[in-house]
Amino acid sequence: MNPRVDEIGFGGLKLLQDPAQFCYGVDAVLLADFCRAKEDDKVCELGSGNGAVSLIISAKYRPAHITGVELQKGPYELACESAVLNGLQDRLSFINRDIKDLRGRLACASMDLVVTNPPYIEKGRGFISCESPQSLARHESSACLADFINEAARLLRCGGRLCMVHRPMRLPDICEYARAAGLEPKKLVPVAPKKGEPSNIILIECIKGAGKGLQVMAELVIREPDGSFTPELKRIYGEYRREDQK
Amino acid sequence: MNPRVDEIGFGGLKLLQDPAQFCYGVDAVLLADFCRAKEDDKVCELGSGNGAVSLIISAKYRPAHITGVELQKGPYELACESAVLNGLQDRLSFINRDIKDLRGRLACASMDLVVTNPPYIEKGRGFISCESPQSLARHESSACLADFINEAARLLRCGGRLCMVHRPMRLPDICEYARAAGLEPKKLVPVAPKKGEPSNIILIECIKGAGKGLQVMAELVIREPDGSFTPELKRIYGEYRREDQK
Repeated sequence: MNPRVDEIGFGGLKLLQDPAQFCYGVDAVLLADFCRAKEDDKVCELGSGNGAVSLIISAKYRPAHITGVELQKGPYELACESAVLNGLQDRLSFINRDIKDLRGRLACASMDLVVTNPPYIEKGRGFISCESPQSLARHESSACLADFINEAARLLRCGGRLCMVHRPMRLPDICEYARAAGLEPKKLVPVAPKKGEPSNIILIECIKGAGKGLQVMAELVIREPDGSFTPELKRIYGEYRREDQK
Repeated sequence: MNPRVDEIGFGGLKLLQDPAQFCYGVDAVLLADFCRAKEDDKVCELGSGNGAVSLIISAKYRPAHITGVELQKGPYELACESAVLNGLQDRLSFINRDIKDLRGRLACASMDLVVTNPPYIEKGRGFISCESPQSLARHESSACLADFINEAARLLRCGGRLCMVHRPMRLPDICEYARAAGLEPKKLVPVAPKKGEPSNIILIECIKGAGKGLQVMAELVIREPDGSFTPELKRIYGEYRREDQK
């Protein structure tokens, strides 16, 4: 493992990343922005990787506490170090465990908000080269999408929110598994790489025990035709961009 | 009933409408464009109203045959007259019947394409003033959304397509009922009234017996900030706009 410290903005946040494993991307930044955690929220991140999403949420929204859960030891250790590096260890902790094995560690109905960026590729689909960290983060070779949703439903209080970033192709699965678990899809943001192109990311919020009724929000576009970030993305990256321009 | 003849473009198409009942809107035009019927397609429209969608599809794509099904006698009669008025009576016929009562009239697996613009408001929700034609067209006071989807699934051959226009709030219901009926959601187009606003219309295509995997297409925007149609809408209205400018 050969981690490096990246300054990722959001008020001078530092993130330990191992480029040979998995670095955070636009998905993490979009999810952290989308979830709009409140100051007294107890938050859980399922599949927290190197902690990028939890760190950004902690720095950006200052919720009461965040617990990140990550199966892989390498990224889990980086996340713990990053929490200390940013002085966030009192508000942010990580658990090195399978998300299917949290009973006894995290209580039922104990969370106001669960965020997750689960593996994108369905079990048995796509080419899996080996059990590499990248492969585990991208493929459902451990927990599958339904496991993430079921565990979120267990952890959330009634009225609590699940915020997820995923691929559009899985939207019907997300709706199906969420409803089966008592989570109602309430807000969807399609995210397109450029204007006029199909979405390649979706952000979705489900609320435990809510009534039916989904809002499809304005499409979010990542880049201008010239490849630069759109004003909306610049707003979401916020301080990162300012940091970048120093 | 006091119908009038409207020239609605698409190659000089004439449509009998009763303004006291229900006139076709942008939903009908979007659905007719979205469905991309093929020349040898056998098509069914469930809930065909005054026939606007079926007439536009017939004129625009020239499929082998379209059967429109409409419960209400007034709009049904207008649709029949409009078919004759446009010389389309050989390619376009209407049935005055409840879509829940088509067994024996339309055979199982007989259609390549089903299009529908079902009532938007869920049974028991919203304020229903009376059993007026507008109320029947907007509320699920006769068949409900699941009835429309189940009947589409019965009528479609394997690989056949259901194309639907609806409200975003019902998207999780559409996914749920479609999958339960063996129709897989494959393509979604969010439609926003103006750029930056939430969608108020969705177009969705489900395919009978298809594998999983939804595409979320580029958002379609109806109007420019000044209220005029966007270039994409002008393309969809096509000949209508030219007709308009005579």
